[in-house]
Amino acid sequence: MKIGDQYYQSLWVKENDPEIIQIIDQRYLPFEIKIRNLKTPEDVSTALEDMFVRGAPLIGVAAAFGVYLAVLKHRNSRNINFKVKQAAEMIKKTRPTAVNLANAVDRMVKITEKATNIDDKIQHTFDAAQNLMREEVNACRKIGEYGIKIIKRISSNKGRDPVNILTHCNAGWLATVDYGTATAPVYLAHDKGISVHVWVDETRPRNQGSRLTAWELGQHGIPHTVITDNTGGYLMQKEMVDMVITGSDRTALNGDTANKIGTYLKALAAKDNNVPFYIALPSSSIDWTLKKGLNTIPVEQRDQAEIHYIDGLSDKNIIEKVRITPQFSPALNYGFDVTPARLITALITERGICKATSKGIMKLFPDKLLS
Amino acid sequence: MKIGDQYYQSLWVKENDPEIIQIIDQRYLPFEIKIRNLKTPEDVSTALEDMFVRGAPLIGVAAAFGVYLAVLKHRNSRNINFKVKQAAEMIKKTRPTAVNLANAVDRMVKITEKATNIDDKIQHTFDAAQNLMREEVNACRKIGEYGIKIIKRISSNKGRDPVNILTHCNAGWLATVDYGTATAPVYLAHDKGISVHVWVDETRPRNQGSRLTAWELGQHGIPHTVITDNTGGYLMQKEMVDMVITGSDRTALNGDTANKIGTYLKALAAKDNNVPFYIALPSSSIDWTLKKGLNTIPVEQRDQAEIHYIDGLSDKNIIEKVRITPQFSPALNYGFDVTPARLITALITERGICKATSKGIMKLFPDKLLS
Repeated sequence: MKIGDQYYQSLWVKENDPEIIQIIDQRYLPFEIKIRNLKTPEDVSTALEDMFVRGAPLIGVAAAFGVYLAVLKHRNSRNINFKVKQAAEMIKKTRPTAVNLANAVDRMVKITEKATNIDDKIQHTFDAAQNLMREEVNACRKIGEYGIKIIKRISSNKGRDPVNILTHCNAGWLATVDYGTATAPVYLAHDKGISVHVWVDETRPRNQGSRLTAWELGQHGIPHTVITDNTGGYLMQKEMVDMVITGSDRTALNGDTANKIGTYLKALAAKDNNVPFYIALPSSSIDWTLKKGLNTIPVEQRDQAEIHYIDGLSDKNIIEKVRITPQFSPALNYGFDVTPARLITALITERGICKATSKGIMKLFPDKLLS
Repeated sequence: MKIGDQYYQSLWVKENDPEIIQIIDQRYLPFEIKIRNLKTPEDVSTALEDMFVRGAPLIGVAAAFGVYLAVLKHRNSRNINFKVKQAAEMIKKTRPTAVNLANAVDRMVKITEKATNIDDKIQHTFDAAQNLMREEVNACRKIGEYGIKIIKRISSNKGRDPVNILTHCNAGWLATVDYGTATAPVYLAHDKGISVHVWVDETRPRNQGSRLTAWELGQHGIPHTVITDNTGGYLMQKEMVDMVITGSDRTALNGDTANKIGTYLKALAAKDNNVPFYIALPSSSIDWTLKKGLNTIPVEQRDQAEIHYIDGLSDKNIIEKVRITPQFSPALNYGFDVTPARLITALITERGICKATSKGIMKLFPDKLLS
């Protein structure tokens, strides 16, 4: 998507140097656009763990390139397969919840091991990572094409009033490679002249909503309003929300969905107020091995410093970190919660819209289930 | 309650100078304890509007002293009743949601008008404000005595494990004059040696939870953990919450309760996970004129700057304000939501615990309903 007039992805292979992966370092947004080079699997590991890049689909793509960079790093090693596997394990440990990560890494390790000479290992892992990136972009575009139908339907009932869409966290192009998952239908609707307005949940503690989603939407010219995570329920009580769309970090076969902490609360409020609640996700975020998600999907616990400190722009236009809690108070920082399928109106995938049930998912992805 | 070893209220009459009301300016907590003098009704108005003091019961008490200060200010005016009424209107406009404010101010204006000479006006308004303050302190203590029974019952089922209590916003002694409403049972339980632990919702955008409640509890030595507002639902899914207690800014006769924005989301999660959800409130927060609360209680909309900017302690130990949203993004800042009575397990009042229904409330307060 665009930043100002320039087209960007959240991650790309450096022009004229395929041994360098470039990313937007999202820790500095919306205050600064910093491009960073990733040259080693360790670089990728740090970028994932410290969330230079985040969002399940982008995590998967970055991790895939991480394995490719591990192959490059160890190209002269006699036990390259072992070294790459070690690097892969390191990368896998960085973010336990998003299923895209483990899936992408495992696939890449297999490709590495299958190739018998170093040139093939390099070429095949590079191609596979590139393919995954293209697949994710295509999946997001398709999600947008299916999701726009829902927005159109609501819009035609509302006349000239904008369709009010609430989203939590960032499932935008910064969380994928392009378009986004939850935002793809919104971008497409806006581009087709359908009037939309997005309620952007701030998304504490890392504020991916106010820092990334609001910024993304603003760059694209989409009307939006930042609200605190506490506000969505009241807006629904006041009939100020027409639909909710969020992304997914991992969806089980029964439709239970792990997503950014707080998603479950919005799903409860949506149910209580008869507001449709959608999860937009590429099939790479479905865990084909998991029958149900509640109490089974591993939920990452992150550093409590993310709650104690916050970054912002000082009046001197410098990014400053300030402490916002009492010195003696501990904090607990879970990254995700699990929204039970019963609260989800439907899943919007690259193959269409389905019920958040095993039956619904099986109908769209019979091939995935067989594999 | 105590700050370190020293006993404090959130508001008091200055020793040896009854024409000055002193408060802890809560905008600087937990970083700095600033005492401020209020000498005029305008001082009180600013203190309410800019939230030097906040919390429904404390708002009522501060407003009552505000009318007394108006009487002092206009003691030489020929149309003193008119002037005091004007000042009262100014004070009433500062915070529309807490019913304590309008009730206290109206009562004080009547007392002013009833007294026929200036000495009586001064003495009677001073006495009435003092009485209200004492009533609020007593009510909080009684709420604690009734509420502790609930904690004891849970504790006896849990053995040595602490009772995990989730609270939202600050309904502590800083929100009242002493003890607090939601925190009163917690303080009393802790003092009696019952093991308790409090999950403190951060409470965006003004962070009354992490800034005030966590600080209060810490000063009193009560184990607590700060969590983001997004986290409570997940903790309930994991059975890490035994009960929820919050305060009330205004409770209608049917039990519907306006409280800090986000309370409704926690009530939904509590219901979904069979966690008991209590509202602790003095009867001064009940609106005896309101049959139901949903869509009737006025909900304050505050400055969007509260969402865009946040105060914290810099690494130089200075309080600094930073911008945390993109420059071009608007924000919407509702202060409260309304939790429907059906989600409330019971109300804990100064006269006992009752169902959140007209019947339940009428049984405890038959006299108030007649008046």
